[in-house]
Amino acid sequence: SPVREVLFFPSRVTCVESLLAEEEEAAAAATPCACLLPHGESALGRLLARVLSARRSLDLCVFAFSNPQLGRAVCLLHQRGVHVRVVTDTDYMALKGSRIGELRRAGIQVRHDQDSGYMHHKFAIIDKKMLITGSLNWTTQAIQNNRENLLVVEDRDCVNLFLAEFERIWEDYNPT
Amino acid sequence: SPVREVLFFPSRVTCVESLLAEEEEAAAAATPCACLLPHGESALGRLLARVLSARRSLDLCVFAFSNPQLGRAVCLLHQRGVHVRVVTDTDYMALKGSRIGELRRAGIQVRHDQDSGYMHHKFAIIDKKMLITGSLNWTTQAIQNNRENLLVVEDRDCVNLFLAEFERIWEDYNPT
Ligand SMILES: [Zn+2]
Ligand SMILES: [Zn+2]
Repeated sequence: SPVREVLFFPSRVTCVESLLAEEEEAAAAATPCACLLPHGESALGRLLARVLSARRSLDLCVFAFSNPQLGRAVCLLHQRGVHVRVVTDTDYMALKGSRIGELRRAGIQVRHDQDSGYMHHKFAIIDKKMLITGSLNWTTQAIQNNRENLLVVEDRDCVNLFLAEFERIWEDYNPT
Repeated sequence: SPVREVLFFPSRVTCVESLLAEEEEAAAAATPCACLLPHGESALGRLLARVLSARRSLDLCVFAFSNPQLGRAVCLLHQRGVHVRVVTDTDYMALKGSRIGELRRAGIQVRHDQDSGYMHHKFAIIDKKMLITGSLNWTTQAIQNNRENLLVVEDRDCVNLFLAEFERIWEDYNPT
């Protein structure tokens, strides 16, 4: 099915360090991690693995972004040469814990809404081919405490409709 | 494709009275409506048509529900004998404009979260076969002002995963 995966939250808290380990650290990461968190599967781990599978592009359109692990994943992709673009909501961007400043300092292109309404989408498009969308904001509160869902979709028509929506928003929020 | 339709918001404001007309009013509704709103297609009209297509059951799991037209649609389904169940978030339920009181007074079963986190889902399952899910809360603010998305999915495995999530939440929020 083009619906590749469904993730429900809250996610149990697990260690995701091995997913976030850079290649130079891969040997180190292969040795068992000594931290006190469980090291099995989790919804956050599954989401991180999908995001980190990007090889060419990540187009991210998310109302609220404060989760540190997802912030590290997006910065890692940028360091690896993946073309990352981020759209977010102005109101949330200013709140404590937002990752948006960190992304900008890393050199990632970020645009934010100029509208009176909220930019309330929560979707990511990986390599123009895979859509991750649902109710989940990229916040630790949502991941660990809320009832949330995400779909991973590889239907071409559906992904193209979301890509077109991303491009519309990207242009609408062009500050120049 | 099992992804039947993608809807983006904000929706232009159109008249949806003909969609909401009961059968006894169908003749009246067939005469051109004299109101001042445009009478063409809109994302809200498409969503209402999907909701009103229910013949057996509506399982609705939505964080915030204040839109009057969607409230009327859900009450109409209940009047037609469709089995309606609603799950919502406690915090939003108490706010001005919430439709939840109206649904309860109409005799519709409503349950709300007992958790510390938010019940942040925004999905509906029609006749156990069609899933409507995305970023959109069922509020007029979201429909008319926000950037939002909805997917209409008829993938059986995906729908069944959401049905199981609904049943888990329905039992978790059982007040007895
Ligand atoms: Zn660890
Ligand atoms: Zn009218």
